[in-house]
Amino acid sequence: MSHTAELIAVGTELLLGNIANTDAQTLSKELSALGINVFYHTVVGDNPERLRRAVEIARSRADLIITTGGLGPTCDDLTKNVLAECFGKKLVYNEEAAQRMEAYFRRLHPDTGAMTENNYQQAYLPEGCVPFQNDWGTAPGCGFVSDGVRVVMLPGPPSECGPMFRARAIPFLAECTDGVILNRSLRVFGMGESAVEYQLRDRMNAMQNPTLAPYAKEGEVELRITAKAEDEDSAQAMIAPVEAELRELLGELIYGADVDSLEQVCLGLLKEKDLTLASAESCTGGLIAKRMTDLPGSSAAFRGGVVSYCNEVKNQALGVSQALLDQYGAVSPQVAQAMAEGARKLMGSALALSSTGVAGPDSDERGNPVGLVYVALAWNGGVHVRELHCAGSRSRIRTVAASHAFDLLRRKLTGLSL
Amino acid sequence: MSHTAELIAVGTELLLGNIANTDAQTLSKELSALGINVFYHTVVGDNPERLRRAVEIARSRADLIITTGGLGPTCDDLTKNVLAECFGKKLVYNEEAAQRMEAYFRRLHPDTGAMTENNYQQAYLPEGCVPFQNDWGTAPGCGFVSDGVRVVMLPGPPSECGPMFRARAIPFLAECTDGVILNRSLRVFGMGESAVEYQLRDRMNAMQNPTLAPYAKEGEVELRITAKAEDEDSAQAMIAPVEAELRELLGELIYGADVDSLEQVCLGLLKEKDLTLASAESCTGGLIAKRMTDLPGSSAAFRGGVVSYCNEVKNQALGVSQALLDQYGAVSPQVAQAMAEGARKLMGSALALSSTGVAGPDSDERGNPVGLVYVALAWNGGVHVRELHCAGSRSRIRTVAASHAFDLLRRKLTGLSL
Repeated sequence: MSHTAELIAVGTELLLGNIANTDAQTLSKELSALGINVFYHTVVGDNPERLRRAVEIARSRADLIITTGGLGPTCDDLTKNVLAECFGKKLVYNEEAAQRMEAYFRRLHPDTGAMTENNYQQAYLPEGCVPFQNDWGTAPGCGFVSDGVRVVMLPGPPSECGPMFRARAIPFLAECTDGVILNRSLRVFGMGESAVEYQLRDRMNAMQNPTLAPYAKEGEVELRITAKAEDEDSAQAMIAPVEAELRELLGELIYGADVDSLEQVCLGLLKEKDLTLASAESCTGGLIAKRMTDLPGSSAAFRGGVVSYCNEVKNQALGVSQALLDQYGAVSPQVAQAMAEGARKLMGSALALSSTGVAGPDSDERGNPVGLVYVALAWNGGVHVRELHCAGSRSRIRTVAASHAFDLLRRKLTGLSL
Repeated sequence: MSHTAELIAVGTELLLGNIANTDAQTLSKELSALGINVFYHTVVGDNPERLRRAVEIARSRADLIITTGGLGPTCDDLTKNVLAECFGKKLVYNEEAAQRMEAYFRRLHPDTGAMTENNYQQAYLPEGCVPFQNDWGTAPGCGFVSDGVRVVMLPGPPSECGPMFRARAIPFLAECTDGVILNRSLRVFGMGESAVEYQLRDRMNAMQNPTLAPYAKEGEVELRITAKAEDEDSAQAMIAPVEAELRELLGELIYGADVDSLEQVCLGLLKEKDLTLASAESCTGGLIAKRMTDLPGSSAAFRGGVVSYCNEVKNQALGVSQALLDQYGAVSPQVAQAMAEGARKLMGSALALSSTGVAGPDSDERGNPVGLVYVALAWNGGVHVRELHCAGSRSRIRTVAASHAFDLLRRKLTGLSL
């Protein structure tokens, strides 16, 4: 049978806007992969009466309720108390849960090992529940079934919520899943969202299963094909023709499928071809290097970079000639080229990326407008400069500029025209 | 009178976990500043019947309903259609809204200027509403009052939702606000959340207005004092003694009040003292430079940095001696020191920060464990190295290490012991 889930996040900090409800995003992704429909997310504060009402509404429209947050001593275990009451269950002391918490504290504080008194109340759990051991923090979660409704309670911190769901709740939910929902994500760089949407609109509207939906990322678009089927093979078979059609239409603008980022694709290509990379950054200020080194294993290909945030550093560290800086200014295709060549030489890499531009909020002293950026790629025997006119905030301009640099590299490494 | 708001986000992409509901966070912050209570957030998919039911529940428990998303052609203006129906209003063509959309398209596409047909349906708005012009995208929002409930509809993209709320919805809501809610945020670095919480727990529990709550950030803690009062002065007067008490207790661990980050505090201090900074990064891979240059105006103090992701670059670009690298290895206090001194010399800066360590997922070739990091600060006549044992993911280790580097700088610039 088909199951319907509702997520209830408990925490006044969510209603005050101090944090975003990223737990709901994490769990929604997981549930979608399990083939469980999520129809509503609800957020409620640390208030027993309002939480009780939210639970009553949820049980009237869902047969799986997953709560996040409101466990642990800070909030007097609000969620556990209210949910136990709503479903007519007592809380009982769980010796095993207490011992596991003690062990966690000893690991975290090897010198004292002492667990503070307020933590012991977390060892009380609804009678008859399946306790979820917390290897990522203190408050244990749990799951139980009552009146045909399955209830799962998870801690609020994202570093505990997601891992506990995957390791503890999924086995508990095994009986709930029916069929699979499979996603295929195609990543597009070099075409705006509205253009993609306009081109695909009629096609998307005509689709029921699989579906096709565009998601705008900063400066790029993700096209997500989603199929629901009895098993993975059937879902794959439904997705394949749609993917083929999109590849026919968008061609080399698609830089990857089921990948996280342009830089991830670049790192894979660099490793495959046994090539090394360096960077020289002005307006992106280290973002190219940071994005590359975010990736585990990047040291196999990335040798290093220079952030040259003033002309002296461009000149002295990267060897950009003073004459060039004087004649064309720091924001120019000539300087972008010299920076990439300089980084390649300094770092002894096969390839080098550079960026120079105006990230804003103000235009530069030569009157170059905010958003004008040059990115360059240097290789053995050549260099290519791309001129950009980026719109949006300082942060968006920097992100889009770094992405264009990676796009140059991706195109070069796959033999496309620059 | 006191008002109660509910936020309804419309979008299947939220229920699939493709994006987080950051609009709810943005609007909650804004509403809290206006003194409007938010008791619930609801998320519902692109489904008219389920949206209708969510609206019916919301109007039974709130007198201000703010929707985000589901406007615009991609979703057939779902939200506008359902809300108009729920409140018994017709949709009427708004010539002004159409003209403004056309102008927006001309600005975005100066060559063609053509607005695609599917955009015109966005010019239909509920009769008698106040249209909210969209200067940040295409879909206009609107507000209306019906049956004692105030309804506000905003577009979903975060780059449109927040700005439209501030510029268009706040004036529309002026009559709803009563009193003010004021926040004071103290930022703490150098003490874990559970330690802070344990120390403050009894104090926090005893407080009603103002309240005090801790929020864990990556490697740091924010303590937020919130007061509700008739006017700003009264709220300030309630906050001041709590802040004084916390400063007494936590002293120099508090690095700032109502600031965004350690690096923001550092940049302010550097500018104030007319000093310059450089960086030399190994395990943080550009994150120190990136965080510094995220800040507008950072070019006044930040000269540049080197990301030395291999030993050759540490040696050739930063002048770290090969003997040092051979004897102690790249992850050592000696190399951290030499990197900071090398960056200072290369970049001609007054101060320089460095980092070298093991960000993971694997330990290094010398067997140094994941999470071992050395950060250093060099200045005219001295250098200081701090040894760190960071827990968590690669991303967390890099973030915490960069924060420790900034904390060294902050302490040096404010005359504290290192």
